[in-house]
Amino acid sequence: MHSLTQERRRKFYGWGYEGDEVSPQEIAEFEKAWTRLLGVSDFTAVPFPREDSIHLRPCRVKVPASLEAICTTDNYDRLYHTYGASTVDVAYSVRGEFRNPPDAVAYPRTEDDIVKLFRWCEDDSLAAIPYGGGTSVVGGVNPPEHDRYRGAISIDMKYFNKVLEIDHVSQAARIQAGVLGPHLEQQLKPSGLTLRFFLQAWEFSSLGGWIATRAAGHFATVYTQIDDHIESMKVVTPAGNIESRRFPVSGSGPNPDRLFLGSEGTLGIITEAWVRLHRRPKYRQMTSVRFTDYDKAVEATRCISQSGLYPASARLVEREEAAYTGSSDGTYDILVLGFESPDHPVDAWMKRALEICGDFGGTWDEASLSGDADADSGAKSWREKFLRGPYLREYAIARGVMRETMETAITWERFAKLREHVKSETHRAIREVTGRPGSVTCRFTHIYPDGPAPYFTWFAYGDKLRIPEQYMAIKKVAEQAMVDAGGTVTHHHALGRDHRPWYDKERPELFCSALKATKNIFDPRAILNPGVLFDPS
Amino acid sequence: MHSLTQERRRKFYGWGYEGDEVSPQEIAEFEKAWTRLLGVSDFTAVPFPREDSIHLRPCRVKVPASLEAICTTDNYDRLYHTYGASTVDVAYSVRGEFRNPPDAVAYPRTEDDIVKLFRWCEDDSLAAIPYGGGTSVVGGVNPPEHDRYRGAISIDMKYFNKVLEIDHVSQAARIQAGVLGPHLEQQLKPSGLTLRFFLQAWEFSSLGGWIATRAAGHFATVYTQIDDHIESMKVVTPAGNIESRRFPVSGSGPNPDRLFLGSEGTLGIITEAWVRLHRRPKYRQMTSVRFTDYDKAVEATRCISQSGLYPASARLVEREEAAYTGSSDGTYDILVLGFESPDHPVDAWMKRALEICGDFGGTWDEASLSGDADADSGAKSWREKFLRGPYLREYAIARGVMRETMETAITWERFAKLREHVKSETHRAIREVTGRPGSVTCRFTHIYPDGPAPYFTWFAYGDKLRIPEQYMAIKKVAEQAMVDAGGTVTHHHALGRDHRPWYDKERPELFCSALKATKNIFDPRAILNPGVLFDPS
Repeated sequence: MHSLTQERRRKFYGWGYEGDEVSPQEIAEFEKAWTRLLGVSDFTAVPFPREDSIHLRPCRVKVPASLEAICTTDNYDRLYHTYGASTVDVAYSVRGEFRNPPDAVAYPRTEDDIVKLFRWCEDDSLAAIPYGGGTSVVGGVNPPEHDRYRGAISIDMKYFNKVLEIDHVSQAARIQAGVLGPHLEQQLKPSGLTLRFFLQAWEFSSLGGWIATRAAGHFATVYTQIDDHIESMKVVTPAGNIESRRFPVSGSGPNPDRLFLGSEGTLGIITEAWVRLHRRPKYRQMTSVRFTDYDKAVEATRCISQSGLYPASARLVEREEAAYTGSSDGTYDILVLGFESPDHPVDAWMKRALEICGDFGGTWDEASLSGDADADSGAKSWREKFLRGPYLREYAIARGVMRETMETAITWERFAKLREHVKSETHRAIREVTGRPGSVTCRFTHIYPDGPAPYFTWFAYGDKLRIPEQYMAIKKVAEQAMVDAGGTVTHHHALGRDHRPWYDKERPELFCSALKATKNIFDPRAILNPGVLFDPS
Repeated sequence: MHSLTQERRRKFYGWGYEGDEVSPQEIAEFEKAWTRLLGVSDFTAVPFPREDSIHLRPCRVKVPASLEAICTTDNYDRLYHTYGASTVDVAYSVRGEFRNPPDAVAYPRTEDDIVKLFRWCEDDSLAAIPYGGGTSVVGGVNPPEHDRYRGAISIDMKYFNKVLEIDHVSQAARIQAGVLGPHLEQQLKPSGLTLRFFLQAWEFSSLGGWIATRAAGHFATVYTQIDDHIESMKVVTPAGNIESRRFPVSGSGPNPDRLFLGSEGTLGIITEAWVRLHRRPKYRQMTSVRFTDYDKAVEATRCISQSGLYPASARLVEREEAAYTGSSDGTYDILVLGFESPDHPVDAWMKRALEICGDFGGTWDEASLSGDADADSGAKSWREKFLRGPYLREYAIARGVMRETMETAITWERFAKLREHVKSETHRAIREVTGRPGSVTCRFTHIYPDGPAPYFTWFAYGDKLRIPEQYMAIKKVAEQAMVDAGGTVTHHHALGRDHRPWYDKERPELFCSALKATKNIFDPRAILNPGVLFDPS
């Protein structure tokens, strides 16, 4: 069966499109940074896998004739849909291991197509895996390993990619859920409106994925989560369609949309949503505030979070991490602070936020204050590294370098202990697993009046042949430390299958029973994304 | 059996405590206003009912010996718990009709007490009605009229009234759900923190009631709903307790708290919650902006809602309503605009908001701009009338004057049509039902970037002997008009039993099936608040 994707192909083993290679110069630069960070210098790379050298498990399903036009069992499509984009996914990919591919990949073009796919999966006991952009870092799109299912179908929503309607007055749009970030913004551009939901995976993640996983975006305060942007949505479930009504807010009983926000493909497939938009910012100020005392930097950030100033950015980056990205010399932490508005100059806002920073010993260059978000070199350097990050992943892994990010949210009064515990436990795990020291650093991605969303990055140099195993061993300790210290298992990376051990303890048991009862209404044959949120019963 | 309430007693037929009488002078003032509004002058009042003249249906239940210490079948307690505080509730009360009282009233002091009450209700097929402050305006606390139940118990949470823990750093507190507004603030006062959730029923409504009904409070933007203030909560259900973990935010699957926000006592009884607090404002500016063109006033308000200025108040009151409350001479609409902050002077915020108002023809007195929220006489006059409103209700009804408020939320682009339709339909209904013209006016209580929460007030002069019937006939038309025009059936008054006809159409059918399946997990014998949200199956 031929491939149904005629567009530019994505790499089946890593980030970006085929041909999006990282240059030797850029790799050399990163290798220098890794040497500084990890004290190693051997970066001999294992080769990336070739499509034709991978022998996939034969397809276990027979695509019904009526679905042949939208399904493929082509090797490339199955390879590409075997994994998401977690470090362990990429590590298995780089090692050429694709042991549990989907048996077929479907590309529905209508809601009716989705219903037909559900019927097929129900009739033939197949798992149905909703697939948006494939950037899950938690095993959210990987076919289940569960013998209850005779096969697995990945349902790729890429053709649900249109902005259907724009309401300029209320600043909202009805958008199909399979659209990826850049294509979404491209369609909105003529309206002057934007979703501004610039998460790290923006290029390759979809609106439906953001909704299903409760992703968080560009804004550090107020409109942080996709949850805050949803007016209504449409969901196709095996039991029928659910369409909520479009309101700015409603007090009518439990909110139906909130059931699907975070449902991660277990209850239905989100096909479209009315989302709130923003006008493009006309006024901006951004700067990097330096602190030599980290605890005081945290206090300043807390005060800003409780000030009602609502900065668009408030990213406190501790010195080790700021040094890695070139925005600190390693002797100070930085708070990347930004205000933006489509309506008014933000000088008064920035002035007061900087006053707060000053009260806690923060310093900044008055000259760097600018309406141009790119003028501050520290901020700019950081952002470039941020967006470039995912492209480096497979190159790092091929060289034995593991890089993982874990994120959480916790109330302010417990943050210091959480950070200390996560860092010391993760350092310990890295040493025990790899026999070498590693790096563990923390920054805030979002802040709330009652607490930050800390984001930890760890680096370790492992055995190129055992990366998935070493990575999982370290991750297990690190996640456990985060949850033991009172953090949630995820602020915006979602649960998938990888976070289940901690989620199972975090969520109230009776609530899980209610979710299962709900699933039984929407998906009585339990075909949808089994193993995510809970096990099929 | 003796009454278990030793405190100052609430009136069983109206608002406030026994002895809280409205003075003849104040009544005379209101009568003058009603004459202007409704063109009538006969305000002969029917007398208020006396407790000893009401013969209640005999109690149908036998309180188990083990529960006698926390239950009463006293006449006063049963009378007082027969109704909430809707116009129709008060109208029946004033007429002395208490046809469906609870058979007993329970005052649990511990979660274990609640569990024992649940067991009793399950064993004896009794309906269990959670009762917070009793201010429901939608029939949310009235015993069901359903022959499936052999009786009904009202479970009054008044003894769950303590602030248990205050986290000064993260600005949050763990609070028992039965506490009423003033007692809650009194306990918080020494901390300098406040919930600032000043809804109209603040004096007599409870935290648990706010959560169960998704109430909206003081802030016109950002932190409008109680939903936005909840970190975690504890719920006692017949199947066991559910306690969520305390986080600023989490992306771990569907949010358990969101299932109970709006559950209106059908899934369990909320016993405590961690709620976000605010520091008391130090800086304030408040003024009333006058507009002679209502459409332009709406446009100004919309621009402010989309500006990112986030005013604490943005109450657009149309001229007829402003005239009734004495803050307009009837030739202009007013926008009550207020900014407040615990952190910084709000001059820059107010200045820009007024610039926007000016762009749309708004005018204001520079002299009225003040840090004192009470300095602006228009705003002050309005607020006093607002808080006094509920006290007048039973006096108005006894004089044949019906006053009802209905609220909704709708996106901006549909607002003008909604207002027109609701006003014309309600005017028509008032004329048809009472044979006289009435008054229907609109204001905004809260604003969102994508739409306002319009709040309609109507007055009609009816037949003193048929107020409940006339009121329901008018309400039915008015609510239908609101929903037909695209509004939600409630922004913050909740559903109860009275809003069911419209809620049943608003919520997706499959979502209701999921809610029923969820209820079956938490409340398998369906004892909790039957008839609210959906019918017992």
